[in-house]
Amino acid sequence: MREVSIIGIGQTDVAEHWDKSVKHLAYEAIKDAVADAGVDKIGALYVGNMIAGQISMQLHLGAQIADFCGYRGIEAYTVEAACASGGAAIRAGMMAVASGAHDIVVVCGVEKMTDSIGENVTGALATAADAEYEVDQGANFVAINALLMQRYLYEYQVPHEAFAGFSVNSHRNAVHNPHAMFRTAITPERYRKSSMIAAPINMMDSSPICDGAAAVVLCTSDVAAKYTSKPIRLIASSCATDSLALHDRAEMLWLSALELSANQAYEQAGLGPKDVDVFELHDAFTIMSALSLEGSGFAPRGEGTRLALDGEIAPDRRIPICTRGGLKARGHPVGATGVYQVVEVATQLRGEAGETQVKDAKIGMAQNIGGSGATVLTHILSV
Amino acid sequence: MREVSIIGIGQTDVAEHWDKSVKHLAYEAIKDAVADAGVDKIGALYVGNMIAGQISMQLHLGAQIADFCGYRGIEAYTVEAACASGGAAIRAGMMAVASGAHDIVVVCGVEKMTDSIGENVTGALATAADAEYEVDQGANFVAINALLMQRYLYEYQVPHEAFAGFSVNSHRNAVHNPHAMFRTAITPERYRKSSMIAAPINMMDSSPICDGAAAVVLCTSDVAAKYTSKPIRLIASSCATDSLALHDRAEMLWLSALELSANQAYEQAGLGPKDVDVFELHDAFTIMSALSLEGSGFAPRGEGTRLALDGEIAPDRRIPICTRGGLKARGHPVGATGVYQVVEVATQLRGEAGETQVKDAKIGMAQNIGGSGATVLTHILSV
Repeated sequence: MREVSIIGIGQTDVAEHWDKSVKHLAYEAIKDAVADAGVDKIGALYVGNMIAGQISMQLHLGAQIADFCGYRGIEAYTVEAACASGGAAIRAGMMAVASGAHDIVVVCGVEKMTDSIGENVTGALATAADAEYEVDQGANFVAINALLMQRYLYEYQVPHEAFAGFSVNSHRNAVHNPHAMFRTAITPERYRKSSMIAAPINMMDSSPICDGAAAVVLCTSDVAAKYTSKPIRLIASSCATDSLALHDRAEMLWLSALELSANQAYEQAGLGPKDVDVFELHDAFTIMSALSLEGSGFAPRGEGTRLALDGEIAPDRRIPICTRGGLKARGHPVGATGVYQVVEVATQLRGEAGETQVKDAKIGMAQNIGGSGATVLTHILSV
Repeated sequence: MREVSIIGIGQTDVAEHWDKSVKHLAYEAIKDAVADAGVDKIGALYVGNMIAGQISMQLHLGAQIADFCGYRGIEAYTVEAACASGGAAIRAGMMAVASGAHDIVVVCGVEKMTDSIGENVTGALATAADAEYEVDQGANFVAINALLMQRYLYEYQVPHEAFAGFSVNSHRNAVHNPHAMFRTAITPERYRKSSMIAAPINMMDSSPICDGAAAVVLCTSDVAAKYTSKPIRLIASSCATDSLALHDRAEMLWLSALELSANQAYEQAGLGPKDVDVFELHDAFTIMSALSLEGSGFAPRGEGTRLALDGEIAPDRRIPICTRGGLKARGHPVGATGVYQVVEVATQLRGEAGETQVKDAKIGMAQNIGGSGATVLTHILSV
C-alpha cells in the first residue's frame, strides 16, 4: 500500500451561512486546500455529506461540486456514514491514492443544516439512528444521547457537573480559532445554569446546528515534499461498526466500534495512547467525550470525566482534546466534521495552531463518530 | 495496484417488496453472494444506495446492514452518486482490495422505492438533478429525460418508433431472467400504444419504480481461484463526471462523462468496443440506450437506434445489451442497479445466463449512469 500524506488544507468558518448553498461552502474549502497544496490538477473528489438530500433536496454532490469547482470530468462521489461521513470520505480518498488509482485527490466534508427546504433538521439527523427500533418509538438524536448520559451518571455515580470541563475546554480553545462558531469562553457556572434540552443534556453539553465545509488534498508520501515543506503523513486509518440502536449493544456505556477502530489504528501506526500528542475527538455531546477518552485508552472505564476535572485535556497538558473548539464550540456541520478534525490535527502538527498550539506535537489522532457510536473512523497523523 | 476479481454474486428478485425493508433486501443479496463465494469472513462492506434517507428515513446503512448480516464490527459505509451509486460502490470496494486495505470485501447495492414513510419517490429521485437550476423550475426526472429525447428526435430526425427495439429487446430477455420484474415480452405495437408519461417518453420508454438488492464478493485475483472455479476479473474501472444540469453541458445530446468513462476503461483494459461481447448499459429511459451506445463507441452520433432497429442488440448478435432485461424490464432499484449490472455481466462470463447466454462471452462491460449523465461508472470484466 502506498503511504498517503496531506499536502493541503482548507476550511470555511462554521456558522449559519444563510447566503451560501452546499456547493458554495464546498467550493470555498476546496479552493483554499488546493491553493495551500499548490497543485494544478486533481484526479478525484470524495465528498463527505450526510443530509443534503433532505435539507437542500440535493444528492449527487460529487459531480455537482466537482463541476462547480472547475473540475468537470474527474471522478467524484459522496460517502455517507451519518456524522462519520467526513472521516469515511477521508478513508475513501486515502484508499484511492494508496491503491494507485489516483496520485492526487481532494476530500471535502460539507454540510448545510440551516435553511431547510425539505425535512426539518431534527428529523434529518434522526436518520443516523435506527428508524424502526429507535426513531419510530419517538426518540430523536438528542434523546438517544440523553439516555446514554443518564445511564452514565447512574452507573458510575458521576454528577452532571463533572462534564462541565469538556464544554469549558472546547469554548476556551475556540476563542483562538478564527473559523469557530462560538468564540466565547464559558464558566462552569454558565454550564450548570444553561437551558435543559433533554435531561440530563443541556445546551452546553450539546453541539450546535450549523453550516461549514473543510477539505484536504492527499497524495503519496514519496512526492509530498514536492508540494509542501510541511507534509503530514497519514500513518493509520481505520473504520469499525456496531449496532445502530443502543439496546442491541453488548454494553451500553462502552463504544465497542470506537475501541476497535482506535486499536486497529494504534496497531497500524505501531503506537499507543501515550504517544498521541493531540486528539481531536467527537464531542457532539459531552457524554461522547468521556466515552471516547475511555474507549481510546486514555482513561479507565467510568473515569473519562476525571481528565476534564483535572484539566488534563488543555493544550498544554497530558492529552489535549478539541484544541480548535471541538464539535461543541467550533461547531458540528455533521458530514463535514470528520474532515475538520483532520484539518485541525494537521494544523497542530504543522505548528500553526497559534495560541492553542500543542508544543512539539508530532503525533495526532482524529476520531469521528457516526450515530451514537455505530460507525467510528480513527485516523492517526504524523509529521 | 492489486488486480481484483469477483468470486461471488447474489441478487434478490426485483419487485415491489412490500414485506421487506432495506436491510432485509440487502441481507438476501449479501447472504447469497457470500455463500456463492464460500468465504467465512469479510473485511468490509460498501453499500450503494441513493434514497433510503428520504424513502425509509434511514441513513447510516453501512453499519446497519453489516450488523444485520452478522458482520458487526467490520468497516462499512455508503457510497452515493444518484443512480450510479451501485457502480460507485463497486469502485470503492475495488479500491479497498486493490490498495491492500482489505483482502475480501462485499459490495451491496440496495434500494427500496416503494412504501415511503418520507418524501414521495418522484421528489426523492429529483435530487439526482440540479435542485436550483432544474428541480426548482418544475422539472422532475422524467421531464428532464423527455427534454433530452425530444431534442434527439428533432436533431437527428429519428421517429419515436425507432426506440421501440430497445424496449422490445429488454422485455424479451427478461422473460428468461427469474429475478426480473417484468417477465413479459412486448411487441412494437404495444410500445407504440402505451401511455404517455412526459412526451415523448411513454411507459415502455421508462424503467419502473421497484425494490431490490444485488451483491458481489471481491478479492485479489491471485487468490480468487481458491474460492471459485469461475473467477471474473475486474480489468477496468472508471468514474467520470459532467454538469448535473442539461443546459450547462457542452452538447446536450452527447454524454461527455460517459465517453470519458468508457474511454478510460478501454485504455485500462487495453481493448475497444469491438472486443466487448456483452454490454449491460443503463436503459433508465430508451433515450439513454441510444446515447450510451453512441458515447461508448458502438454507433456513430445519432445512429444508436439503428442497432436496435437492425436487431444487433440481441444476445446472439453483434453487441448484446440488457441481456437480463436491463433497467426497463429487470427493473431499476436506483442505488442497486450498478451492482445488478456487474452481477449480470459476471453471470454471462460464467456462462450461466441460460436462454439469453451470449455464446463464448469473454469480455463484458457494465455502465452505470447517475442523473441524466452527470456521473458515469464503467467497469470491464473478463474471464
